[in-house]
Amino acid sequence: MSNFKEWAKTPPLGWNSWDCFGAAVNEKQLKENADYMAENLKQYGWQYIVCDIQWYEPNAKDNDYNNFCELEMDEYGRLLPAPNRFPSAKNGKGFKPIADYVHSLGLKFGIHIMRGVPRQAVAQNCKILNSYSTCRDIAHHFSVCSWNTDMYGLKDCEASQEYYNSIINLYASWGVDFIKCDDISVTEFRRWDNPYTADYEIEMIRKAIDGCKREIVLSLSPGPAPRANAAHLCKNANMWRLTGDFWDQWDKLYEMFDKCREWEGVSAKGNYPDCDMLPIGKLSKNGTCHGPQNRMTQFTKPEQFTLMTLWGIFKSPLMFGGNLPENDEFTLSLLTNEKYIEMHQKSFGAKQIFRDNKTVIWASNGKKRKYVAIFNIDKITRKIKADITSILMADTQYSALEIWSGEESVVKNKIACEIEPHGAKLYLIN
Amino acid sequence: MSNFKEWAKTPPLGWNSWDCFGAAVNEKQLKENADYMAENLKQYGWQYIVCDIQWYEPNAKDNDYNNFCELEMDEYGRLLPAPNRFPSAKNGKGFKPIADYVHSLGLKFGIHIMRGVPRQAVAQNCKILNSYSTCRDIAHHFSVCSWNTDMYGLKDCEASQEYYNSIINLYASWGVDFIKCDDISVTEFRRWDNPYTADYEIEMIRKAIDGCKREIVLSLSPGPAPRANAAHLCKNANMWRLTGDFWDQWDKLYEMFDKCREWEGVSAKGNYPDCDMLPIGKLSKNGTCHGPQNRMTQFTKPEQFTLMTLWGIFKSPLMFGGNLPENDEFTLSLLTNEKYIEMHQKSFGAKQIFRDNKTVIWASNGKKRKYVAIFNIDKITRKIKADITSILMADTQYSALEIWSGEESVVKNKIACEIEPHGAKLYLIN
Amino acid sequence: MSNFKEWAKTPPLGWNSWDCFGAAVNEKQLKENADYMAENLKQYGWQYIVCDIQWYEPNAKDNDYNNFCELEMDEYGRLLPAPNRFPSAKNGKGFKPIADYVHSLGLKFGIHIMRGVPRQAVAQNCKILNSYSTCRDIAHHFSVCSWNTDMYGLKDCEASQEYYNSIINLYASWGVDFIKCDDISVTEFRRWDNPYTADYEIEMIRKAIDGCKREIVLSLSPGPAPRANAAHLCKNANMWRLTGDFWDQWDKLYEMFDKCREWEGVSAKGNYPDCDMLPIGKLSKNGTCHGPQNRMTQFTKPEQFTLMTLWGIFKSPLMFGGNLPENDEFTLSLLTNEKYIEMHQKSFGAKQIFRDNKTVIWASNGKKRKYVAIFNIDKITRKIKADITSILMADTQYSALEIWSGEESVVKNKIACEIEPHGAKLYLIN
Amino acid sequence: MSNFKEWAKTPPLGWNSWDCFGAAVNEKQLKENADYMAENLKQYGWQYIVCDIQWYEPNAKDNDYNNFCELEMDEYGRLLPAPNRFPSAKNGKGFKPIADYVHSLGLKFGIHIMRGVPRQAVAQNCKILNSYSTCRDIAHHFSVCSWNTDMYGLKDCEASQEYYNSIINLYASWGVDFIKCDDISVTEFRRWDNPYTADYEIEMIRKAIDGCKREIVLSLSPGPAPRANAAHLCKNANMWRLTGDFWDQWDKLYEMFDKCREWEGVSAKGNYPDCDMLPIGKLSKNGTCHGPQNRMTQFTKPEQFTLMTLWGIFKSPLMFGGNLPENDEFTLSLLTNEKYIEMHQKSFGAKQIFRDNKTVIWASNGKKRKYVAIFNIDKITRKIKADITSILMADTQYSALEIWSGEESVVKNKIACEIEPHGAKLYLIN
Repeated sequence: MSNFKEWAKTPPLGWNSWDCFGAAVNEKQLKENADYMAENLKQYGWQYIVCDIQWYEPNAKDNDYNNFCELEMDEYGRLLPAPNRFPSAKNGKGFKPIADYVHSLGLKFGIHIMRGVPRQAVAQNCKILNSYSTCRDIAHHFSVCSWNTDMYGLKDCEASQEYYNSIINLYASWGVDFIKCDDISVTEFRRWDNPYTADYEIEMIRKAIDGCKREIVLSLSPGPAPRANAAHLCKNANMWRLTGDFWDQWDKLYEMFDKCREWEGVSAKGNYPDCDMLPIGKLSKNGTCHGPQNRMTQFTKPEQFTLMTLWGIFKSPLMFGGNLPENDEFTLSLLTNEKYIEMHQKSFGAKQIFRDNKTVIWASNGKKRKYVAIFNIDKITRKIKADITSILMADTQYSALEIWSGEESVVKNKIACEIEPHGAKLYLIN
Repeated sequence: MSNFKEWAKTPPLGWNSWDCFGAAVNEKQLKENADYMAENLKQYGWQYIVCDIQWYEPNAKDNDYNNFCELEMDEYGRLLPAPNRFPSAKNGKGFKPIADYVHSLGLKFGIHIMRGVPRQAVAQNCKILNSYSTCRDIAHHFSVCSWNTDMYGLKDCEASQEYYNSIINLYASWGVDFIKCDDISVTEFRRWDNPYTADYEIEMIRKAIDGCKREIVLSLSPGPAPRANAAHLCKNANMWRLTGDFWDQWDKLYEMFDKCREWEGVSAKGNYPDCDMLPIGKLSKNGTCHGPQNRMTQFTKPEQFTLMTLWGIFKSPLMFGGNLPENDEFTLSLLTNEKYIEMHQKSFGAKQIFRDNKTVIWASNGKKRKYVAIFNIDKITRKIKADITSILMADTQYSALEIWSGEESVVKNKIACEIEPHGAKLYLIN
Repeated sequence: MSNFKEWAKTPPLGWNSWDCFGAAVNEKQLKENADYMAENLKQYGWQYIVCDIQWYEPNAKDNDYNNFCELEMDEYGRLLPAPNRFPSAKNGKGFKPIADYVHSLGLKFGIHIMRGVPRQAVAQNCKILNSYSTCRDIAHHFSVCSWNTDMYGLKDCEASQEYYNSIINLYASWGVDFIKCDDISVTEFRRWDNPYTADYEIEMIRKAIDGCKREIVLSLSPGPAPRANAAHLCKNANMWRLTGDFWDQWDKLYEMFDKCREWEGVSAKGNYPDCDMLPIGKLSKNGTCHGPQNRMTQFTKPEQFTLMTLWGIFKSPLMFGGNLPENDEFTLSLLTNEKYIEMHQKSFGAKQIFRDNKTVIWASNGKKRKYVAIFNIDKITRKIKADITSILMADTQYSALEIWSGEESVVKNKIACEIEPHGAKLYLIN
Repeated sequence: MSNFKEWAKTPPLGWNSWDCFGAAVNEKQLKENADYMAENLKQYGWQYIVCDIQWYEPNAKDNDYNNFCELEMDEYGRLLPAPNRFPSAKNGKGFKPIADYVHSLGLKFGIHIMRGVPRQAVAQNCKILNSYSTCRDIAHHFSVCSWNTDMYGLKDCEASQEYYNSIINLYASWGVDFIKCDDISVTEFRRWDNPYTADYEIEMIRKAIDGCKREIVLSLSPGPAPRANAAHLCKNANMWRLTGDFWDQWDKLYEMFDKCREWEGVSAKGNYPDCDMLPIGKLSKNGTCHGPQNRMTQFTKPEQFTLMTLWGIFKSPLMFGGNLPENDEFTLSLLTNEKYIEMHQKSFGAKQIFRDNKTVIWASNGKKRKYVAIFNIDKITRKIKADITSILMADTQYSALEIWSGEESVVKNKIACEIEPHGAKLYLIN
């Protein structure tokens, strides 16, 4: 099989259920979003439908977790979709029927998993498929997630690999194309309030995927992944999170400028530092935490331009977080701008070329073209003159297209523009 | 009821099963040690027989823990003695028959508990006695012990107090006089590899004991208890550990000089910084870890004098760790020196008065007398002259009795002695 | 009078006596170097002839300082050229005859001064011109230079300004065009071994020059000037040193890459971070310290290309340090490359665009052109491919001229070249 | 000759001119103080009359220094008493007539010197006696005192030793018994604002004294001498300062408790950590700085008891700072308490035995006796019970004499007393 970096030649484009349905998404919702994507977004390159956390929990009903609860599980300690939420999963079919449906639309299907083995499987001392060991043998005696009680982390032993093989093979048999593995990528600080880490478990999952005979893209959460681990992450995963959960708040968006700067230059074919989902459109439909229930994004339009522009020029994976069928026209327009998608998929060499208290400027390159993103991080509308002599020939005229508005102009040495508070302009120059 | 500090007016003297039987002590062994104590030690003040960890685990067989195993437990999530190990506990009698036996000998009975609620009770979602809550409601979602898989720590909520009340009341009904609560007293570093901490759980256990109508002495483990927590510990417990587990190794004994110095001045009626058990006599009968199986202590005789002298002048609780019936004459002699016991029980104001690379000197006070302990921490036999002018009148004669040897002398300004490597002399001066 | 930044619209080009004659330069040598410059270098823009330290000391004879020695001085405590070394200075004419001579060649004349007042003037308690105060009144009681015993720093008082006025007016009357003030620009660390600092003295000298009615360029030494002081330096001086004394050693040249990176972006019209003199050609003619006596530079030819290329693209002032009349052809060729001088004088926006253990790349801009400097900091000859997509349009052809060799080529996306150990290539691209 | 530690077998008792006359003491004042001492204090052990700084400066007139001024000096760069202030010094007699006078009273004579060589001697390039070198050869080029402009520190070379020999021999020939060398003992922080340091100069002065054939006690200033240098100080000097200049302010007195604690245990025969002069009686007669001119000490009577008690039990040298002839009865009584002087001269083993926010207790030992000093550092009068069981036998009666009041009592386990704000009690117990 080819190297896993070939399985995501450009940064993934998709949808994830967390921002709109939390821990409680169901089959109908997954299919409705898939239908919408097939009809409205597929032609622009969007392809992943990802079911996020707790699909194995029958009683999940909102954005929060039920501690120590019963999970749907097979005799080998492998979690299964809760049939009351995913009816097609009955009779041990798992996610195969849903994956088949998604594939039939020309899209790909992904799921979320937690690092480790279910505590329930340890309590029941389940056998591990194709192994003489049991789940009790592989559970690490004190490696627990700090925010979810479902699992134990695994020991660094052979039987742990066998367990990971058993679950990845199951998911491959369902037709899973994308796995977002959680509680695994924060490894710098082994501290009490931030203990989720396990380099060797990342390596085991890599090995399990490489052996499963299906090209499954691997995404790691949560963030912040430590910058010092970049080489290890590039060797084992397709994408990994740069921050904790991202929501529709300006302060979190503002902080992302620092994170992108920190990870500047790491992005490469098959390896994508990940700014997290796009919390736009209709969010938090099941409510109880992470902001008001059933809201449209709290980001202003200028902030949404900033969000899309930064994620795009940085080549972060784009995972839409809202409930797609409830998109308004503006939201949809952000996802279907061809020039934007072309930049996101094909540009290279993105870097920050200017920053002060009020303005941030990034630039990247395409074939005979430059992209320049100008961000107004101030609270007032401002006129900005962006010096482009460091990236192009001085005293020379170029044509400029502002990607979001479609406005065209001629520029020399500087790009002059006016930007709303927290807003952005994105120029294609040639 | 009186203040709990009245329940241990002097530092406790007793026996604990851990050093000789590890996690696997049984009823017969408890009784044999109680018999020995009643016959040989009781008249000197020794009184506690303490059953250490894992008495609720049927399959415990040595010094190590079985991870994620089944525990003997009642319907309210309260652990019970494993009847295969403690036959008299059958039919829900718990430790009452053994406590009754110990009491019949004129001694007191103690048990070890772990902070929190059994994970097994959480998995089964047991009810809590006299509460509308269940064990699942009180388990903290990520407070776990780093070295034992039996329990979850508790949340800081009312039902947690109800659970602690339910277990302490049960133990009180059995006639328990002493509880050594483990995984609870290391609170300074909330770190991944040292996460056992819970100030509020200490307070809950204090409250449960104060409400149980039985005078139960409370001992906290493991160490190192942080020095900065001294006030909190004094307010809630009778004794607490200064270090991690202590064994018969010179380096650990050597480190205890620093610890005693650090805690100098804290000891008071009912509050005793605890240097841990005395690992002398016959140890590790069930083997597998913590040194050679079924050995006599690896401490030399001089080291045993040092051990007894330091623990004694510092007024640490004395919990003998060997299997009492296998004591040799020398070991027994260490436990039955009247002058020594009198110092341990009645002296006050102990402090280190000298320390260099080779010698440590402690002094404390009794009625019209001084105690001076001289330690040779060097590897060779050395003559030492201990200056006593800072604690007594210069140029004045005093009589001196070396407590271990019984040798008498007259001293003025200095005590001159010769001490073997790692050995000690202990003087009563008047 | 105009703002002082107008007096050095582009970075100064000149010659300084220190590297070749140390503390002992004389009138004949100054004139010989001026003659050479007028004949060979003037047409390329070179114009300053600067007489460095100790011109007021009759007995100076080499590169070292004589401690506590007698200095040539007038009744107002102002130092004068030693007539035995500068015969034209007799009868109180100072440097006026030499300055006149230099001016007659179409060049400019500069001198070195030390911060403060001569200790000799303090001992004699000289009057200050146009003041009621004396030199004893203004000497700071413990502000002394750590490497030269001639002066005391000044107190922050009005009479200190009067003293500085008196000396600057004298120098202006001689026709001085350039002052290199020493022992003044290290202000970050007020430490025992690095105590030369005095922000207020910099300001006093600025004020004295602005009031003297002559456009005198102000250069500050020694380095390292603290990066945090950039704003203060820009406000008060035309140039300031980035490091301690620079000599013909690779390790010092290597360190300059870090310094240039640190000061990147500060250079502006009239404000030039200064990498120090160019120690090439014939050096240390008077010997005793700073390397072998009367040597040709110890830099290899590749290292000399690196030196010139880095100083040039960074727009450091260029002050030639060798004895000009003894230049060989190669050395002269470095100073008379028109394309190089054009870059040095007119380029803008220099910055480092790449660095690893073996390669450093800087780029800057001119009118419809880019400059790209590629440095091989490794010990072996290496082929280097320099990516230029971040500064120019990708997939587009440009013409490239290597400035030192004159080789022309066509480049696209990358510049490929082979560079000798410690060597450099410098490209003009359009 | 004997070891220098034999020359001050007990801590020196004397008078120093600084606190009352500053830089301007004269011959008459020295003699008046000597007369007073001979008549009133000599019988209690007081013996040193010490002339402090600037005796070589003709124009000194108050407590401050004149910068860069002319000094009285011989041809070898050795400072001499200014004859206008010390008439008997005329004709090169130096301090010999005054020393003779002091000796005739049965007292000893001391002088203050500054580390190094006069800058005036360097400017004049004086020869050094018995050497081929000159003062210019030995002056360190940037070792200057931060608060006085008279001297340069010396280089670490042979001729520096010759210079120190030349001055010490001169002082010995005058009959000097005590030298207080200043600007020499702060060596821990080599910082710009605290640069006076020179371990090797201390060693040179030690060597010069040991070679001068006169027993001259050596005192080092200023403080704080670094605690880490204790061994070096003990090897080279009889006493050294623990703090900067001490004056009659409670905050400085309060801080001395910390300093004494820090240096506890260092005092030994011939080596005395020095708490500085006693600023009591009539002070600052020449005014201009260091408090109101010509005042009686600003210390309250309780504070004076604290001052005397702490200095006394700590065995600091006692150098009275007031003008002796103007003593009132209370001040004199502090200097003539026989029990107090006996403690100061003969006690040993002083240490702090208690400290909290309000109370400090020190204890030390004598022959068949203890001394206990109780300090009330609070702002209100307080009753204090001082536990003495750690230094004496518990439950045993002792007789106690309060040294300042003469009150006698019987004590057991505790000393109960009432002390005024900032006051002290001093007990002799036997």
